[in-house]
Amino acid sequence: MQELNIKKFIDEKINLIRETVMDEIAINALSGGIDSSTVTILGHRALGDKLKTVFIENGLMREGEALQVAGFFRKLGVNIDIVDAHEEFFSALKGITDPEEKREAITQTFYKDVFGRIVRESGAKFLLQGTILTDIDETVAGIKRQHNVFQQLGIDPQEVFGYSILEPLIELRKDGVRKVGKTLGLPTELYDRIPFPGPALSARVIGEVTPGRIETVRKATTIVEQMLKDTNAFQYMAILHSDRVTGMRDGKREFGQQIEIRCWDSVDARTAQPTKLPFETLRKLALKIIDEVPGIVSVTYNIAPKPPSTIEAV
Amino acid sequence: MQELNIKKFIDEKINLIRETVMDEIAINALSGGIDSSTVTILGHRALGDKLKTVFIENGLMREGEALQVAGFFRKLGVNIDIVDAHEEFFSALKGITDPEEKREAITQTFYKDVFGRIVRESGAKFLLQGTILTDIDETVAGIKRQHNVFQQLGIDPQEVFGYSILEPLIELRKDGVRKVGKTLGLPTELYDRIPFPGPALSARVIGEVTPGRIETVRKATTIVEQMLKDTNAFQYMAILHSDRVTGMRDGKREFGQQIEIRCWDSVDARTAQPTKLPFETLRKLALKIIDEVPGIVSVTYNIAPKPPSTIEAV
Repeated sequence: MQELNIKKFIDEKINLIRETVMDEIAINALSGGIDSSTVTILGHRALGDKLKTVFIENGLMREGEALQVAGFFRKLGVNIDIVDAHEEFFSALKGITDPEEKREAITQTFYKDVFGRIVRESGAKFLLQGTILTDIDETVAGIKRQHNVFQQLGIDPQEVFGYSILEPLIELRKDGVRKVGKTLGLPTELYDRIPFPGPALSARVIGEVTPGRIETVRKATTIVEQMLKDTNAFQYMAILHSDRVTGMRDGKREFGQQIEIRCWDSVDARTAQPTKLPFETLRKLALKIIDEVPGIVSVTYNIAPKPPSTIEAV
Repeated sequence: MQELNIKKFIDEKINLIRETVMDEIAINALSGGIDSSTVTILGHRALGDKLKTVFIENGLMREGEALQVAGFFRKLGVNIDIVDAHEEFFSALKGITDPEEKREAITQTFYKDVFGRIVRESGAKFLLQGTILTDIDETVAGIKRQHNVFQQLGIDPQEVFGYSILEPLIELRKDGVRKVGKTLGLPTELYDRIPFPGPALSARVIGEVTPGRIETVRKATTIVEQMLKDTNAFQYMAILHSDRVTGMRDGKREFGQQIEIRCWDSVDARTAQPTKLPFETLRKLALKIIDEVPGIVSVTYNIAPKPPSTIEAV
């Protein structure tokens, strides 16, 4: 899109949202990703305080993430409600080790238990979503998809009339969304953050997700992101393994935990190569993680390409 | 020890073994390590065919290890009986994931079930052992220790009289044993082999030890030992993890297995640093393992020092 077209696109969408919502209330969930951030700022330009935006703190975020994202929006004059729901998520994840079941538990808890409840209690009849063209499975028609969203939220559109979903970004692909977001004033720090998976840090834990294990991988993630941020790598991460390995602490043998570091060179995530980091960087990373993250006695670096590896471990 | 003393030591021990065993039969177990190899060659110089030497194939050895060790001795005119006991060991290891319990199962199977049976059936009353000074726990008196060996073999020295243990290397430390072995003609290939743990490849498998998992780590071990043998590193190894990680094969998502490579610089094994291998070497290692070892989709390299890591993982 040309710059002129972006401004036109924004004006049209703002008008459309205003004319649709009228004097009602709208609501949306902000994850801090580009799509939900762009729809948040677009919605607030259209509706002001009539759009209620919630950031659901699921306990699986990176260090300070909720406050950081809310801070970006406060500077833009947009107030974000941070909803602490970490107990509901950890309770849903308890005892689950299968990665697909973890993902499903997080999705269910998000839609049905937490965001669904907030939507139902808010009185909002309009739900803003950052859906983009890439999200849409071509085999699923629009109506069925929207019906599914309501079902996920525990709202039966056959019984409860009047709910609508607004998806102002649905014609755009990722590059278009980035341009719209930038034009609307989203800060570059939001764009520069490396890709982060939907299930957040639970995707960085092999085996059961507990508050303690999330805290361990969160600390390691902070170290890895700080030390590798100048590498220009496509993606980098810390993964907490479930396997125990032998270690020595204070002269005593102990079964400790292992962190695996992955750092990827990639253009489009379809194929990827481990970044050729200097050995000194690897050594420093390992020492810092061992020193600062309780329980970690071993650190490895991924040296296998994608394929047959994938970028994330679970 | 001076060279003169070594020859004298060897002559004295050969005479002592001959005078003790007389016309009886002696037996010993050869593992392929320096101590058991040295006592084997010393015993055969003294007793010839009256010493029966067994190499117990527990199914946990490296590729071709039993034949390689037997081959070294055949060249020295010594015949080794290779006893295939892999089914007994795998059956004892079935279902065990705890590292200490694995070690105990292997020790029990070796002494009580396999070697004990061979000793009892052999008619030998003299047992040659490669015990060296370092092996002896100072708090354990010699008699008690020897009594323990018989107990381990399922022989009650109170009931069955006449069994004796001969330990001709017991005054020596490792460097002395090496000199004796070299003087007796043990080939340098035997000395140059990197350290290998007692529980063999079962110490390189996190989680349950099965024939399939041993075969996986054996293949990876062969690749790692071939590709790193010119590094002059202190020790290098492949470890099969129990944690599953996501991989892609032929366009399909699969949960695959991970191999961790460790390569150590060390003088005395008390502290150790990961060897600074060229990134190209790491890349080639990963690709070869992924290509040649079925089920492996991910390879990592250890970057943590000892301590707090240990050299082996289990």
